[in-house]
Amino acid sequence: MLSFDVVAREGLARRGRLKLNHGSVETPVFMPVGTYGSVKGVMPSTLEAMGAHIILGNTFHLWLRPGPDVLKRFGGLHRFEGWPRPILTDSGGFQVWSLGANAKVSEQGVAFASPVNGDKLLLTPEVSMQIQRTLDSDIAMQFDECTAYQVEGRVAGEDAVRRSMQMSLRWAARSRDEFVRLENPNALFGIVQGGMFESLREESVDALAALDLPGYAIGGVSVGEPKQEMQRIVAHTPQRLPEHKPRYLMGVGTPEDLLDGVAAGVDMFDCVMPTRNARNGHLFTRFGDLRIRNARHKEDESPIDPTCGCATCARFSRAYLHHLDRCGEMLGPMLASQHNLFFYLDLMRQVRESLEVGGFAEFALAWRSDRRRGV
Amino acid sequence: MLSFDVVAREGLARRGRLKLNHGSVETPVFMPVGTYGSVKGVMPSTLEAMGAHIILGNTFHLWLRPGPDVLKRFGGLHRFEGWPRPILTDSGGFQVWSLGANAKVSEQGVAFASPVNGDKLLLTPEVSMQIQRTLDSDIAMQFDECTAYQVEGRVAGEDAVRRSMQMSLRWAARSRDEFVRLENPNALFGIVQGGMFESLREESVDALAALDLPGYAIGGVSVGEPKQEMQRIVAHTPQRLPEHKPRYLMGVGTPEDLLDGVAAGVDMFDCVMPTRNARNGHLFTRFGDLRIRNARHKEDESPIDPTCGCATCARFSRAYLHHLDRCGEMLGPMLASQHNLFFYLDLMRQVRESLEVGGFAEFALAWRSDRRRGV
Repeated sequence: MLSFDVVAREGLARRGRLKLNHGSVETPVFMPVGTYGSVKGVMPSTLEAMGAHIILGNTFHLWLRPGPDVLKRFGGLHRFEGWPRPILTDSGGFQVWSLGANAKVSEQGVAFASPVNGDKLLLTPEVSMQIQRTLDSDIAMQFDECTAYQVEGRVAGEDAVRRSMQMSLRWAARSRDEFVRLENPNALFGIVQGGMFESLREESVDALAALDLPGYAIGGVSVGEPKQEMQRIVAHTPQRLPEHKPRYLMGVGTPEDLLDGVAAGVDMFDCVMPTRNARNGHLFTRFGDLRIRNARHKEDESPIDPTCGCATCARFSRAYLHHLDRCGEMLGPMLASQHNLFFYLDLMRQVRESLEVGGFAEFALAWRSDRRRGV
Repeated sequence: MLSFDVVAREGLARRGRLKLNHGSVETPVFMPVGTYGSVKGVMPSTLEAMGAHIILGNTFHLWLRPGPDVLKRFGGLHRFEGWPRPILTDSGGFQVWSLGANAKVSEQGVAFASPVNGDKLLLTPEVSMQIQRTLDSDIAMQFDECTAYQVEGRVAGEDAVRRSMQMSLRWAARSRDEFVRLENPNALFGIVQGGMFESLREESVDALAALDLPGYAIGGVSVGEPKQEMQRIVAHTPQRLPEHKPRYLMGVGTPEDLLDGVAAGVDMFDCVMPTRNARNGHLFTRFGDLRIRNARHKEDESPIDPTCGCATCARFSRAYLHHLDRCGEMLGPMLASQHNLFFYLDLMRQVRESLEVGGFAEFALAWRSDRRRGV
């Protein structure tokens, strides 16, 4: 059950509203990542307060722990993790890609040994749909093969990328069939593959569009390719996806990448960067990025970002965050994650507002210029 | 600047109100421990919301990091750590005790190598007072020697304990002199030592009372002695302290220990137990303690404690906390710390309410019986 309305446009960029079974999502949107059923270091109540509309979960990881029996008992992921708003779950394709040589890919699916207990497991489009049905995620992703950019140190050639992309298409059809068979009341998104080859991306887009799914994602980017390669695909593919369906750019990226994506017609983003960087003391600010470990912050009474409206910047100084980092105090990553996520969510809020008044291009220009200034 | 009023009594137990420079504290009170300027895993806003009136900081640790220069720049610990309510700072005596053989104790003070950078440092009563002045803690503790229960595997004898206690008395006078010289506008507490010897405890009490300090603590308990030994001293010493001054039992203890302390006339408590145990998956409940790692919680939909009013129990199940623990997710210790601290603070709230109506003995009896039931 899903509807998507584009309420304003500027160039290729769109301001939209997504209606899902657990609530509405204003787009363009950034979705915090909660792989194991928890956005690392952030309370769900804090996520709600900072305006997160939808978060991610991961089919692969939640299949292994806590496992389908526990999730069934809770009637899905929402109640289990105490998050009443929408959830999107990745299908497991990307995690299988991360397993590398430890996974055996065949037409049927992916065989691998559980990294938790060594059990031999087989993840197929059908299994992925069954788990996502159990999770009751508002948006389920098709099971796909996330095509590698490099294989054994060499950039994957066009034939190999085509074979992978075409298998993902067959898996899309199998995912859709199983999704329908399970009478899943939520939405299924297809995933465009095709590596860095525009022609393959177009072939993937056309074949997926023919399946008439409720939404589409661009996968297989941010997988080790040079930045310009990613930018080329982000500029190429989104606009070719069906006009009236939401478009999701998977696993991307820096704040600037998000602006690129919006300009290219993307509606949804996710990335571990705000939380992972926070845990490494890498903080985002309006005037560039800041390494809290740097000795120059030792006595700095100013907040991370004086222009920021987050709860961390309202109460704590760089010197305090520097101190927490040096002492290895858990509160350090907690406060940093809160700030970085707010930064991403607030950026998207500003993007949405600018789109509503036709001022996105201007906003993005000024914003990029601020960020280049340096902090 | 400090006043203390006893507003109700029941046996030796007292219900009081402590007025400090940064606010009032209702007693009996439990004080969460924020050694390095952070109560581990809990936001200050969360501590405020759950009703913490006063928290601890540690002179020794904050002297090493971030150091006095940073703290001076912030005008003290309150602004540095974003905590506007009262703060009590331990003097460093206990930490010196923890250093064991790496510290050299003399009449002058304690010489040791910084565990952070190896610098040779000397902590004296005067230095401790100077740091606590810089910290601007509402309650400064005298510098003392926390008398060891055992030395090199043998229980310390009466002569050794007396020598240590008497040096702490001389350090109390030096602490008081330096506190006055620095024109510290806050309150200085003395610390009773004397090990497990009632006569030495009484000697310490009498000598400290003669100094007419604003408050007194019982130190040198919970330092490795058998439980009954601690209980004997807790039953003995508090009632012998000046009637109209607040009494603080340092580093104690389990919820049941707190009830023992209140019954013996103690007004203030601190302990790392709620937060440390939380990080180890040891959770307090009305009907006994619970190990969240235990496999029996894997599918348990109930909250940690169905009778608990904390934000963790309002939203999350044992199964979810078990899952977070298994996955090593930071949210696990965050939610557990929030629960355990609430449990301690709420226990003291109930104790205060019972004292107001003369129902403490009855409350404590019923509460202990509930706890013995098992969860």
